[in-house]
Amino acid sequence: MASRTSLEYLESLKDGRAVYYRGRRVDDVTKHEFLSIAVKHAAMLYEFKRDGKFSEMANYSDPDIGLMSMFYKIPKSSEDLLKRHELIKESTRYCNGIFNIIQAIGSDALFSLLITSAKSGDSVLRQRVQKYYRYVVENDLAMAVAQTDVKGDRSLRPHEQADPDLYVRVVESNSDGIVVCGAKAHTTQSIAANEIIFIPTRAMVEKDKDYAVAFAIPANARGLKLVCRPVQEVEGLGTDDAPLSSKNLEIETLTILDHVFVPWERVFLFQDWKLAGELANTFATYHRFTAISYRSVMAELFIGAARLAARYNGIDAAPHVRDDIIEMILYKEILDMAAKAAAHHPLFDDRTGIAIPNPLYTNIAKLYSNKQFPNIVGALVDIAGGLTSTLPTTDDLNSPEIGTYVSKYLQGSTRYSGEQRFKLMRLIREIAGGPMTGYLMGLFIHAEGSMAASKIALYRDYKFERAEELVSKLAGVPI
Amino acid sequence: MASRTSLEYLESLKDGRAVYYRGRRVDDVTKHEFLSIAVKHAAMLYEFKRDGKFSEMANYSDPDIGLMSMFYKIPKSSEDLLKRHELIKESTRYCNGIFNIIQAIGSDALFSLLITSAKSGDSVLRQRVQKYYRYVVENDLAMAVAQTDVKGDRSLRPHEQADPDLYVRVVESNSDGIVVCGAKAHTTQSIAANEIIFIPTRAMVEKDKDYAVAFAIPANARGLKLVCRPVQEVEGLGTDDAPLSSKNLEIETLTILDHVFVPWERVFLFQDWKLAGELANTFATYHRFTAISYRSVMAELFIGAARLAARYNGIDAAPHVRDDIIEMILYKEILDMAAKAAAHHPLFDDRTGIAIPNPLYTNIAKLYSNKQFPNIVGALVDIAGGLTSTLPTTDDLNSPEIGTYVSKYLQGSTRYSGEQRFKLMRLIREIAGGPMTGYLMGLFIHAEGSMAASKIALYRDYKFERAEELVSKLAGVPI
Amino acid sequence: MASRTSLEYLESLKDGRAVYYRGRRVDDVTKHEFLSIAVKHAAMLYEFKRDGKFSEMANYSDPDIGLMSMFYKIPKSSEDLLKRHELIKESTRYCNGIFNIIQAIGSDALFSLLITSAKSGDSVLRQRVQKYYRYVVENDLAMAVAQTDVKGDRSLRPHEQADPDLYVRVVESNSDGIVVCGAKAHTTQSIAANEIIFIPTRAMVEKDKDYAVAFAIPANARGLKLVCRPVQEVEGLGTDDAPLSSKNLEIETLTILDHVFVPWERVFLFQDWKLAGELANTFATYHRFTAISYRSVMAELFIGAARLAARYNGIDAAPHVRDDIIEMILYKEILDMAAKAAAHHPLFDDRTGIAIPNPLYTNIAKLYSNKQFPNIVGALVDIAGGLTSTLPTTDDLNSPEIGTYVSKYLQGSTRYSGEQRFKLMRLIREIAGGPMTGYLMGLFIHAEGSMAASKIALYRDYKFERAEELVSKLAGVPI
Amino acid sequence: MASRTSLEYLESLKDGRAVYYRGRRVDDVTKHEFLSIAVKHAAMLYEFKRDGKFSEMANYSDPDIGLMSMFYKIPKSSEDLLKRHELIKESTRYCNGIFNIIQAIGSDALFSLLITSAKSGDSVLRQRVQKYYRYVVENDLAMAVAQTDVKGDRSLRPHEQADPDLYVRVVESNSDGIVVCGAKAHTTQSIAANEIIFIPTRAMVEKDKDYAVAFAIPANARGLKLVCRPVQEVEGLGTDDAPLSSKNLEIETLTILDHVFVPWERVFLFQDWKLAGELANTFATYHRFTAISYRSVMAELFIGAARLAARYNGIDAAPHVRDDIIEMILYKEILDMAAKAAAHHPLFDDRTGIAIPNPLYTNIAKLYSNKQFPNIVGALVDIAGGLTSTLPTTDDLNSPEIGTYVSKYLQGSTRYSGEQRFKLMRLIREIAGGPMTGYLMGLFIHAEGSMAASKIALYRDYKFERAEELVSKLAGVPI
Repeated sequence: MASRTSLEYLESLKDGRAVYYRGRRVDDVTKHEFLSIAVKHAAMLYEFKRDGKFSEMANYSDPDIGLMSMFYKIPKSSEDLLKRHELIKESTRYCNGIFNIIQAIGSDALFSLLITSAKSGDSVLRQRVQKYYRYVVENDLAMAVAQTDVKGDRSLRPHEQADPDLYVRVVESNSDGIVVCGAKAHTTQSIAANEIIFIPTRAMVEKDKDYAVAFAIPANARGLKLVCRPVQEVEGLGTDDAPLSSKNLEIETLTILDHVFVPWERVFLFQDWKLAGELANTFATYHRFTAISYRSVMAELFIGAARLAARYNGIDAAPHVRDDIIEMILYKEILDMAAKAAAHHPLFDDRTGIAIPNPLYTNIAKLYSNKQFPNIVGALVDIAGGLTSTLPTTDDLNSPEIGTYVSKYLQGSTRYSGEQRFKLMRLIREIAGGPMTGYLMGLFIHAEGSMAASKIALYRDYKFERAEELVSKLAGVPI
Repeated sequence: MASRTSLEYLESLKDGRAVYYRGRRVDDVTKHEFLSIAVKHAAMLYEFKRDGKFSEMANYSDPDIGLMSMFYKIPKSSEDLLKRHELIKESTRYCNGIFNIIQAIGSDALFSLLITSAKSGDSVLRQRVQKYYRYVVENDLAMAVAQTDVKGDRSLRPHEQADPDLYVRVVESNSDGIVVCGAKAHTTQSIAANEIIFIPTRAMVEKDKDYAVAFAIPANARGLKLVCRPVQEVEGLGTDDAPLSSKNLEIETLTILDHVFVPWERVFLFQDWKLAGELANTFATYHRFTAISYRSVMAELFIGAARLAARYNGIDAAPHVRDDIIEMILYKEILDMAAKAAAHHPLFDDRTGIAIPNPLYTNIAKLYSNKQFPNIVGALVDIAGGLTSTLPTTDDLNSPEIGTYVSKYLQGSTRYSGEQRFKLMRLIREIAGGPMTGYLMGLFIHAEGSMAASKIALYRDYKFERAEELVSKLAGVPI
Repeated sequence: MASRTSLEYLESLKDGRAVYYRGRRVDDVTKHEFLSIAVKHAAMLYEFKRDGKFSEMANYSDPDIGLMSMFYKIPKSSEDLLKRHELIKESTRYCNGIFNIIQAIGSDALFSLLITSAKSGDSVLRQRVQKYYRYVVENDLAMAVAQTDVKGDRSLRPHEQADPDLYVRVVESNSDGIVVCGAKAHTTQSIAANEIIFIPTRAMVEKDKDYAVAFAIPANARGLKLVCRPVQEVEGLGTDDAPLSSKNLEIETLTILDHVFVPWERVFLFQDWKLAGELANTFATYHRFTAISYRSVMAELFIGAARLAARYNGIDAAPHVRDDIIEMILYKEILDMAAKAAAHHPLFDDRTGIAIPNPLYTNIAKLYSNKQFPNIVGALVDIAGGLTSTLPTTDDLNSPEIGTYVSKYLQGSTRYSGEQRFKLMRLIREIAGGPMTGYLMGLFIHAEGSMAASKIALYRDYKFERAEELVSKLAGVPI
Repeated sequence: MASRTSLEYLESLKDGRAVYYRGRRVDDVTKHEFLSIAVKHAAMLYEFKRDGKFSEMANYSDPDIGLMSMFYKIPKSSEDLLKRHELIKESTRYCNGIFNIIQAIGSDALFSLLITSAKSGDSVLRQRVQKYYRYVVENDLAMAVAQTDVKGDRSLRPHEQADPDLYVRVVESNSDGIVVCGAKAHTTQSIAANEIIFIPTRAMVEKDKDYAVAFAIPANARGLKLVCRPVQEVEGLGTDDAPLSSKNLEIETLTILDHVFVPWERVFLFQDWKLAGELANTFATYHRFTAISYRSVMAELFIGAARLAARYNGIDAAPHVRDDIIEMILYKEILDMAAKAAAHHPLFDDRTGIAIPNPLYTNIAKLYSNKQFPNIVGALVDIAGGLTSTLPTTDDLNSPEIGTYVSKYLQGSTRYSGEQRFKLMRLIREIAGGPMTGYLMGLFIHAEGSMAASKIALYRDYKFERAEELVSKLAGVPI
């Protein structure tokens, strides 16, 4: 189908889903003061797809399926991956620099499931995934993916935890399907999704086999509860002082499964513990490719803000400003070049011919991105000045009593008015000196996998042969 | 006098001062929902001074003045500076790791004024400062210091600005005193002060002489307006989810002088542009010594949180945890050792015999502290995990409908309950993943002077002779 | 022609060139104790091209010219650039990780001259360059490029220097050609080249027009003097203890032009000061692309050495070893992915259709490579241990009196003998603890341009529009 | 006794000691082309002590012993430690920035032995150490300390090694004394010492008890063999081009014990495995205090060289130069302030009253110093330019044929001649671009203990209580 309208999409969310905000059940996420921001943000993706300017980039006419979202196009070539990279970037820019996950992550998971189910050798499973893929695409659905289990004691495997529910698991299976319990943390935009795909978070051993489960459920499934993080970005500063978050943000939930029934046709991995790690990894690779693409555009927010702040403050010629901005450019461009190299040098899955972004380049950029982010914030704060912490509010600017003082004294370079400088600083406070800053720290450091996990994987998978042979030969010693 | 009670102090603030919060005049800061936190935080310093456990450390019996606040004791020796360092640290710990500026900064300014006025050679001025010092001490006053001008275009000197008010200046002088206009940014705890001291922010040239002005006024001076930053820390998360900020925080203001009259007895620098830079620098040295002392205790918040998070998550044996925490230890201890070295190797002012913390060590630690802070936040987030961004709220924990899920699924190591882990994570979100994080970024990077300014000063003042001579002699070439 | 044999190449160097080593004229570089290493290293490129294993990669059959060196193939597509990248890497590996510049740099310069001469609009010039290109290719010549002038006072332009010769300049021109004076620093492998191309090192203004000159001369041109750096690598440790440098190294010279005559057919830029900067930049881009390619293989030396050292020392499971090696992997792979992205996203010169590696990605990787190199050395030293500084020599190992002690006490992990560990450590000392280390520091930090210069160029050329527009639109303020 | 003359000292080394250089026995170290440099460097300490300018600082009149070397004065106060700090720095400066270890390290070991032997509770042992201390002091001896065992497989304890000799051990004991075998690596200036003290390198378990041994032997003890590292600094560049190393350097040896007999009066630890770790640690603390003191002066070499290079190159006003030099200043001053803080806040040994430099501050500075050193080298190379790798030699400068070219073209700023710039660059090549650079890398990264070992110790010993209590109390959760 052609892209749903944003209205159709928003209507589809009124389905009785069990969403909680600050301890209270939310009747209708599209109407909630804060959650509606996240939902409308998701809806912008549907607007993006229908925007004439982006329609070619965002839609695809499949010979078999017909018109469909470009996000769901299965990548079979470098060109497909490059287009996907540009699509993610352009849609992120459309949403003011905030990633819009609602179809990207679903496709990341679907591609992984297509590959893994093919590998399983189980043709029933394979067809199930294909059928579900088609269901999602044909209905232009909005998707969330729940991967990270709550995990309990991080030093223990799933089956070793004191409470067996600390990783999502099958508690019962019968001829109709399975029943699952457990909880996933940090599920982005589950409240804005039509369907949620659950996949394992790590490699498993045989004793973990009840935890080796992947499946999909609608967001209003009975027994599913979505507990939201607070929208501190907007609550903390107020709508006027949160020019970005009051328009664009995403919500993560603690996603609880209390004896949720899943029919067999939605079960995509069941007890096959050997495939759990591979599914987790393949998804991670796709999703990190997505991540380095969107993060490159988020970095533009920092670069643009830094450039304008320097000019507004009258310090654009200062050497430390240049150095700070070069740090930011390196940040953005290393992500970008990595994504491009990963697209140009993909792996191809044997069985399905699906193209997988080069995992080495993807992981390196992701690791770089996690580690450097705090310094990017620091660099912007360095340029913008102490006002990132101490700026008054829009209400002060608008106050008849003190507004004129505020605009008078916030004058910087005479090329701009005090009010304009206030507005710029208001945005900078939001991203580098406000609630969103703290939120972004966690996002950039942990989303799509911790640094420690990335390092272990990177070191484990790296091909050292050529380097070791070079030295062994040269030194005349064995490896 | 012995320390005022916290009640006496709080009463003293009900004086009609013109405080604005989000565009509205605040009648009584001690009663305002958010500003009262900052004010009660200040009051804790009076409790600290009267607490038997700290009374010896916090009070001093002067042969001349009698019992007085130890903060105001004029340092004449290394021992005095060391005690001051410990006093600042212990009072910061008393306030849960949040600096309590209300007498420290006042004394930083008073010491600088005593030195500078002595240097001026003007005995009237010198006596004025001494008299004012005695007034502050004898009344155990709470003080703010307004130094950083709003500055307009940073590439221009005060007298070159398009709007002459962008640095605080004398607009009129007569036999009674002077009239001042302008605004200072980032004035910490002005709303909680009895008196505010204004000093120049930079070195000046002759044409800037109307800007070479230092003076003190009561916080309720006519024409003085205090425009607060928003308390996003508490507004964003709510009291329960801001366990630290709902008890301890400080407020900065945009501090506006609209034709404020200052009688001569409160004018401490007037047109003597040559002394402006020296006063600014001497104050900066004292205040940076204060800063590296309190920041060392703030770092304890991060170290303690990291250690507990590692244990609660079951990852205390992981190598990356150790590396992260060692980064934090270096952060804290480099500040601490610098403060101690600065105290042990002070300068002594010729005329007054007042001990000034070693500026080189003080500035180096300050610069290190600014630059490394983002990585300290990053290190805590790395250990604590994605929950710093996605943790539900206390209302969720307490909800009859979902509270049990929250505590069940937040279980980490079995040595602690899910509820305990929630409470720990709630605090960590506050400092490393919430509104306070953004606020701290600006604070740590800019408070007490920008990095660029610090570098310029450090490089300008450094004694290169011995190093250059060593190399010149060795290479046999001229310097 | 097909690749010359290494013997033919070596013979071609016996042409009376004026080479100086440690103050003395060298009669025959192929016979000199230390310079012969550099020359034989160059000869290995001819062996490489004739090696069956690499012949397809290293040779190209041009429809017009016939069989020729692949280094000289003019890149017209991403594929050409990618092949060039692989060719540089593989030939570097063939030479034990040491770059072999002798045709790469010549082609970097020739491509730039082809582009710039086309741009000049001067068809005579264009044909001259084309003819010279053909001459080089058809004779399979070895080339050096002299770009960096000695520069005198770095704060002055060419024409402002006290001594007019501090940048290479035209001192006379007549109907036959021009006469040039001046000197270039750091000319790599000039002693091993058949021809040397001279190009400007920077952008120029009109007054610099006598310095806007590019030309080629044979290495035995009258008036040309090549003053070598000392081969401290081999002299310091001795052949046995310099297993790498005694086989593979390159020599830089101070390259002096004392009234050297250049016939017009070898003059490629003359007084056209506007093109000087563009020629310098285009060459820099090609040459930095070359640099990030070969540096990626040099990094393999460090990675391989680190892996083996960890194993030989019995610390391969230590977390700090993994972290050190991951630093090295990032180093190598960021260079690699940048080179690939630069090849896949080239610029195309309008007039000639020649593909230029993406300058942004090339420069970013080059800057990263310069800045991080000291830490790569540090990481290897960290793993290898103090023996990088204190290892005895091969003569000690071979000594009848003490050899058995040396091998006994250098035993590490029992998987390897003490002698084997000695041999590994000997190589590691050479690259990370010996004379070559110091040499590499300068090479990695300065070759192909200083960091300060790179930053200025990067910042100047960066496209900030999208980032600034994003923020401007979002904040509602002008750019 | 008053300080020996340097001549007396040099004579004392002609004692038949078994020294090997490049596989050959060296008859007389004072006459050997390269080893004599190290020996004469050591002799400079005796000159220093007799130099009127330093005699007060370098000598001490003990009421009991009489006039003695200040290095051996047992520190009993902060003042003593501060004086020791200054003594180490000043003597390092006297030796052109190169540490002169020959009495400092001996005293580091003697102080540790005095403390440990007192702790052992064995009064015979205690008196032995005291007697030996007196012997050393009264004869103004030059000392080396051999601590780091060759260690074999780093993942195994001493008693677990395949070859039992990989840690120094007692192979026999009888009524006269003990017989020891094994080898120590990296023993600095053993060839220039009168006596060598051997102490354990790590904590031990009961099974390691034969390895828990400390003792002293003369440098000519039978069975002791000293295998030198090569003096690549001077061999690589030649005397003229190694202006520093040709005057001042230290030599490390592989120090082999082949059945060396030690009489009981020289055995200071025997089988008391519980004390091994403590002795190792106490020595390490003293020696790291020594290290951060001398490294601070070595840093002056880099700072001075950077300043002069900037000026000679005409780039002293460039912002990146300032940033590079500030990095160096931080390096130097963090070491300095740490040493001072460690001196002002020492531990005092209960039994002996000996002052031990604060281990926390000492270790932090040492760790910082190891980690940052590569960047200090990088910073100097950045300022000095590519000539650090490609500079011709002094022979070129002096050559009648090409000398005038060299001086002409090495002209930088006109404030200096080309020859002067050559001489400066020659020194900079030596420290930042030559054989000494590689040597220094190992020295700065590994001398006085590896970073990994330092981190483990630092983390293990750190007092986390206050930080954990602060957070525990604030969050309301257990530790």
